[in-house]
Amino acid sequence: MKSALPISAVALLIAIFSYTPAATGSHKTDATLLRQLEADFMKAAAEKGSRGYMSYYAEDAVELPNGADAIRGKENIAKTMGFLDQKDNSLTWVPDYSEMAASGDLGYTYGTYEFRAIGKDGKPVVEHGKYMTAWKKQKDGSWKVALDMGNSSPSPKS
Amino acid sequence: MKSALPISAVALLIAIFSYTPAATGSHKTDATLLRQLEADFMKAAAEKGSRGYMSYYAEDAVELPNGADAIRGKENIAKTMGFLDQKDNSLTWVPDYSEMAASGDLGYTYGTYEFRAIGKDGKPVVEHGKYMTAWKKQKDGSWKVALDMGNSSPSPKS
Repeated sequence: MKSALPISAVALLIAIFSYTPAATGSHKTDATLLRQLEADFMKAAAEKGSRGYMSYYAEDAVELPNGADAIRGKENIAKTMGFLDQKDNSLTWVPDYSEMAASGDLGYTYGTYEFRAIGKDGKPVVEHGKYMTAWKKQKDGSWKVALDMGNSSPSPKS
Repeated sequence: MKSALPISAVALLIAIFSYTPAATGSHKTDATLLRQLEADFMKAAAEKGSRGYMSYYAEDAVELPNGADAIRGKENIAKTMGFLDQKDNSLTWVPDYSEMAASGDLGYTYGTYEFRAIGKDGKPVVEHGKYMTAWKKQKDGSWKVALDMGNSSPSPKS
């Protein structure tokens, strides 16, 4: 058993010295990971409506909607997302930036969104806005929205 | 030298096994740190107006104001914060929650704010809203606002 100790020590040293570069590497990868997540998130909302959208929310997620009070918990947030199931409604967004903690367990994105619907007069309506989303790695390794906020933007100049 | 190896191995094992609890400890401390930061941030704004407020913003910070486009960079954001220097105006906020990455370099807070001013008719005006702020540890070890967003809330029921 004595001869095993130096090998353990070497293995431990390798593990320790290889730790930092690995963490730095994943830092960069994970900022890209957040952008990929947002693309998947949007695809899920487009294909499956509110159910797809909510599948990216953590159980204890919080939504900060413009003009209303904070909504706490996935179940309560889901009750307000039914509008995504109406066939003429479409919510799309584009991240401008993503940032990830060095530990790769917490990050955020922000960007712009567009909500398209058909108004009461039958004409298309487009709302423009911005969003900020905090993403948190869950215990099972999946990434979920922990906090999400939106506000309004002026219509882009044409 | 041979006899030193088992000691090194033990020291390395101690270092490895003591790593996780230390990280967990700082995780909790740093979530409290963000709340303290927000208290200091608000005090600076109350005492020094826009200059105090902006002293907590990173050079490359981004502001996502309600009803306007994203503002990029501390200098550009500062241009929109002059209203904090008018003596009847007061911006106060209360964090509801703070979250910190395990690495202690990135976190976020959210909460509610109140903006008090004197309207054109000379009567006091109170605006209620919510905010979300991403805090990032800077190269010099200080903590600064990396991203900040606000939107409106209904007036609290009295």
